[in-house]
Amino acid sequence: MRPSKRAPDEMRRVSLERAVARYAEGSCLVKFGETHVLCAASVEDKPPPWLRNTGKGWVTAEYAMLPRATLERTRRESTTGKPSGRTQEIQRLIGRSLRAVVDLAALGERQITVDCDVLQADGGTRTASITGAWVALHDCLQWMKARNMLKGDALKDHVAAISCGIVNGEPVIDLDYVEDSNAGADCNFVVTGSGGLVEVQGTAEGKPFSEAEFGALMALARKGCGKLVELQKIAVL
Amino acid sequence: MRPSKRAPDEMRRVSLERAVARYAEGSCLVKFGETHVLCAASVEDKPPPWLRNTGKGWVTAEYAMLPRATLERTRRESTTGKPSGRTQEIQRLIGRSLRAVVDLAALGERQITVDCDVLQADGGTRTASITGAWVALHDCLQWMKARNMLKGDALKDHVAAISCGIVNGEPVIDLDYVEDSNAGADCNFVVTGSGGLVEVQGTAEGKPFSEAEFGALMALARKGCGKLVELQKIAVL
Amino acid sequence: MRPSKRAPDEMRRVSLERAVARYAEGSCLVKFGETHVLCAASVEDKPPPWLRNTGKGWVTAEYAMLPRATLERTRRESTTGKPSGRTQEIQRLIGRSLRAVVDLAALGERQITVDCDVLQADGGTRTASITGAWVALHDCLQWMKARNMLKGDALKDHVAAISCGIVNGEPVIDLDYVEDSNAGADCNFVVTGSGGLVEVQGTAEGKPFSEAEFGALMALARKGCGKLVELQKIAVL
Amino acid sequence: MRPSKRAPDEMRRVSLERAVARYAEGSCLVKFGETHVLCAASVEDKPPPWLRNTGKGWVTAEYAMLPRATLERTRRESTTGKPSGRTQEIQRLIGRSLRAVVDLAALGERQITVDCDVLQADGGTRTASITGAWVALHDCLQWMKARNMLKGDALKDHVAAISCGIVNGEPVIDLDYVEDSNAGADCNFVVTGSGGLVEVQGTAEGKPFSEAEFGALMALARKGCGKLVELQKIAVL
Amino acid sequence: MRPSKRAPDEMRRVSLERAVARYAEGSCLVKFGETHVLCAASVEDKPPPWLRNTGKGWVTAEYAMLPRATLERTRRESTTGKPSGRTQEIQRLIGRSLRAVVDLAALGERQITVDCDVLQADGGTRTASITGAWVALHDCLQWMKARNMLKGDALKDHVAAISCGIVNGEPVIDLDYVEDSNAGADCNFVVTGSGGLVEVQGTAEGKPFSEAEFGALMALARKGCGKLVELQKIAVL
Amino acid sequence: MRPSKRAPDEMRRVSLERAVARYAEGSCLVKFGETHVLCAASVEDKPPPWLRNTGKGWVTAEYAMLPRATLERTRRESTTGKPSGRTQEIQRLIGRSLRAVVDLAALGERQITVDCDVLQADGGTRTASITGAWVALHDCLQWMKARNMLKGDALKDHVAAISCGIVNGEPVIDLDYVEDSNAGADCNFVVTGSGGLVEVQGTAEGKPFSEAEFGALMALARKGCGKLVELQKIAVL
Repeated sequence: MRPSKRAPDEMRRVSLERAVARYAEGSCLVKFGETHVLCAASVEDKPPPWLRNTGKGWVTAEYAMLPRATLERTRRESTTGKPSGRTQEIQRLIGRSLRAVVDLAALGERQITVDCDVLQADGGTRTASITGAWVALHDCLQWMKARNMLKGDALKDHVAAISCGIVNGEPVIDLDYVEDSNAGADCNFVVTGSGGLVEVQGTAEGKPFSEAEFGALMALARKGCGKLVELQKIAVL
Repeated sequence: MRPSKRAPDEMRRVSLERAVARYAEGSCLVKFGETHVLCAASVEDKPPPWLRNTGKGWVTAEYAMLPRATLERTRRESTTGKPSGRTQEIQRLIGRSLRAVVDLAALGERQITVDCDVLQADGGTRTASITGAWVALHDCLQWMKARNMLKGDALKDHVAAISCGIVNGEPVIDLDYVEDSNAGADCNFVVTGSGGLVEVQGTAEGKPFSEAEFGALMALARKGCGKLVELQKIAVL
Repeated sequence: MRPSKRAPDEMRRVSLERAVARYAEGSCLVKFGETHVLCAASVEDKPPPWLRNTGKGWVTAEYAMLPRATLERTRRESTTGKPSGRTQEIQRLIGRSLRAVVDLAALGERQITVDCDVLQADGGTRTASITGAWVALHDCLQWMKARNMLKGDALKDHVAAISCGIVNGEPVIDLDYVEDSNAGADCNFVVTGSGGLVEVQGTAEGKPFSEAEFGALMALARKGCGKLVELQKIAVL
Repeated sequence: MRPSKRAPDEMRRVSLERAVARYAEGSCLVKFGETHVLCAASVEDKPPPWLRNTGKGWVTAEYAMLPRATLERTRRESTTGKPSGRTQEIQRLIGRSLRAVVDLAALGERQITVDCDVLQADGGTRTASITGAWVALHDCLQWMKARNMLKGDALKDHVAAISCGIVNGEPVIDLDYVEDSNAGADCNFVVTGSGGLVEVQGTAEGKPFSEAEFGALMALARKGCGKLVELQKIAVL
Repeated sequence: MRPSKRAPDEMRRVSLERAVARYAEGSCLVKFGETHVLCAASVEDKPPPWLRNTGKGWVTAEYAMLPRATLERTRRESTTGKPSGRTQEIQRLIGRSLRAVVDLAALGERQITVDCDVLQADGGTRTASITGAWVALHDCLQWMKARNMLKGDALKDHVAAISCGIVNGEPVIDLDYVEDSNAGADCNFVVTGSGGLVEVQGTAEGKPFSEAEFGALMALARKGCGKLVELQKIAVL
Repeated sequence: MRPSKRAPDEMRRVSLERAVARYAEGSCLVKFGETHVLCAASVEDKPPPWLRNTGKGWVTAEYAMLPRATLERTRRESTTGKPSGRTQEIQRLIGRSLRAVVDLAALGERQITVDCDVLQADGGTRTASITGAWVALHDCLQWMKARNMLKGDALKDHVAAISCGIVNGEPVIDLDYVEDSNAGADCNFVVTGSGGLVEVQGTAEGKPFSEAEFGALMALARKGCGKLVELQKIAVL
């Protein structure tokens, strides 16, 4: 039995609330149970240096947690002088995931930054971020389209993400903080609307896992991401 | 006429929502119109170094804005390597304001940090932060009292803050961003529940102001802070 | 009785010595009793980025203390990696105070930086800095005028500053370090030659102060700043 | 046909040279073709802070490239002020991989740091680092055993790593720089001597990959890691 | 003919004014012509970490220039985040020079820091700093002796320093900024009161120098340092 | 007797291996006994800012040690946030030494950076670096010449360096780590192929040295550098 009483293949309650940030070109407050992330997309009329004069644009992401998003207060990264390795790893992952479904040439020489700020953290913040960031990005691209800023359709597909892991020997989906702390394997899957794999990350905690176990986790994840994509479709109707 | 159609002595709609951060010992989402700040208080069983072995505690504050709290996205301070001068000035102000109404000896050797994270900024973020931080601090001290962590009553009074300024030659209260950008004088007042002054900060923008003008602003502020204290009382009933 | 035997409205002996820095365009060694600050103004033919192509210039200030300006040696800020919050707060204050009396359009696209380096600190370093920086700025503008670098009169007025506080229940002017450490309220006033207020900063230490007390401090400050302006006039004769 | 003329399942020539760093407790110069990494293990009699008084030890890794290890010179990270996101991601991966095969309790309160310095980079530096780091760690643990510093057998298994990817539509193993730059999917697998999975990382470049493609890459990787473990066994004979 | 009309072996006017910093345990304002350095010695009752429990003390130095000590304003090192390579080189040199004439065991577990802050720079700031720092150190040690803080005589000898160089083909002593900029060789010599060499640093600018030229510079320096030691003796009478 | 049984004027075995870095324009693995430094020269088609539009180029150097090059592991400078004072001092020395034998005008507006990475350190790393860097620079300039990138002969002479010191009262050449730790004087000499002095650095450790002692060290160094230049000539044949 999972601590949350959920079935092994049962995700937490997911909600995707749009237009929550008054000034952003697109925004979404995503909740996976008690994990809450505010995603806000901003357009800038200047691409990163390496894209100048290529006609192409870029999509990137930044990720942070409020100091008291967590059980214990964590130190603010502006006072430690730099984002931690974990933070950088996560924001690189979010950025790659979004770029996988965007036609960068359609953006022109612009950059979209999606800020993912975790207001409350109960496990799975990076997968919630990706899922919510897609909605913010979608609305941002709509905003740009309405202003004739895009060359054709920039958004090629949905992208969503979920964590799976082996807890007490059993493969389960969408781990909360308690499960995450006790998982024997912790995997994150990023999947497109058409079922393609964008990122697969599996890490053994404690002892290595087998190929069969990994297969079971991937099956759970594909099913879960399918549902998340359905929720995204409803959210942006 | 003010851009917001408010009367010169009319504050924006203020709301103080408690218990918004699941893990914090006390929290408050404060809204002054479109300015929204999430205040979360955390207790730590370790005082700052200079209070070791004194039996006394400390109250401090940190302040930050989400990158897209503002009209234009601002750079995240964790990537610039340090909090800006403005950020440090504000968080020092919030900390001093709270300490003015706390009996530090009653805390024992502990530190309370109140994080004020601006989710949306439309002027007056520092005064909203102080007003909301008092509520978060209040609830944190209640939490400590219930666990017998306090020596006597730690909270001596209310404290609230408001900005006033001279816009188009007229003294007005609670400036929003548009007014703030055009103000000839920009003042912040921090006032206790019993009417004492904790901080008075006045800055001329463009041309110096007269003592009479300053007096008018102080009168507005004292009235406004009185109302904010009433709202705090209702909020913590 | 004040520790220094001064009357409540008696400032320390003030001196303003010009042309003390051989290479600077304007300079002043200001002494308020045992508080000594070397102010040096430098012109640069490049405005800050946000003023490019506006035809306007800028005046800014930097502030620092020699490590052994103080009773105990303090750590050099170049080794801590950044100016402290206090340092930034002070240099922003000095800059704002000077800009209040300068016609920035008359400077053309140039920046003047006034460095205020505290050689010895006995309280009131920020107000001494502002008072001395005005002299350095005055001489720098004279130097520029002699070279036809200014469009019209750039210096619109004098500006001077003084601290006042409540010590042992009594309002006094120009606190030295011993008084400053024991003050119940610590206020800084920045006043122009024509009596306008540029900055008003009051902070309660320990318990809040009343509006009447604040009024008494302002009266002292206005009188003191009047005298400082007289001394500036004599100095630049 | 691969640019290097290798068969799809053919790794580059791998060599593992021990005892190359005169002062380290264990060391290995690992070469995967033109990718050369110097791995050096150091024991320190002090665990990281969070393990104090637990009786346990820790294994960690640091990773860096010489500035001219690459085709174009890259800036030295000591001059940029911090390790890049990529560097931190890689050194965290190496550390986790090594800890998966070490009994941390057997180390006592000590820390082993394995430095992986890339002398020359032609793709696959992280997988070469893990494979070579195991040899350096093995020798370091032998050195400790000879001095009775270990409680029982600390090294539980081998661990090796290899990259696989889809290049020109075909799954291939051990990509060099040219292939890596053109790969449609880039995956890294970390596998133990007994065939357990420690880390699985797959990233789509350009377009998402299918589950079948991912399965083909995993099959290649498991075979490759099996061979690498054989080479490790010969190296430490 | 030298630009300053001095003879090749003629130093600038040197003055050593003691007790210029009110709070320091020893201080000296040293002037070599237009080069002015304020040297202040501070005692701390804590040695550097590597001397704990050895019974020995340490002498160290820090060096900085006021931003407008120079012809052109230079950026403050607190804003660049770290002391420059040049600054570190100089403060290491001053520290080594002072330690060469101090019996560190006589200090007990204490550290003396001599701050050398250049108020005005016209060449030769490092040699002026060493010469003046000796006076500040002398007075600091006297202060300690008067408080029975020393075990025996801590100061073993004088130490002074001078620069020499080849300008327009001729060996000259005590270069000012103009000469320094045109020197073919630039050497600094640190010499004790009894004539021993503590540091010898020679750098060719443009083309290498011969052993004979170097010998001529050393002869000039030994004579000059002899005079500086005489001036130190008079200063501390 | 020296710990290494070498005669006082006997250097360690020196080897200079070229073309060790596959991608660099010139490279050399230099060994002075157990001190091993990898030198790699890189050309960049952009001069430093202060040489823009002068037609001239620049030669600079960077220096670093692998963490376990030394007996005890040293912390990586990328994690301390900046190169240490010692590192900066050494890389400035290497750069100046190389520039002394290069015609910067012949380079055009380009910069050559020679990276000196110490793989193993047993004393004398800076002198080995200079000696090896010359070889890397030589090959880099040959590479440029073959591509018609040079205006005339850029390399004017050889440059080599050696350390000498007084150990147990006797002047000896090329100190290893054990001798270096016990030396009474530690001097580094940088000498050109034609015998000119480029840099002379002598530091007393413990007690000052006499002019005669210094002369003996210089004589040893000149002989040693002569031999090193012979070895360079053979290496680049």
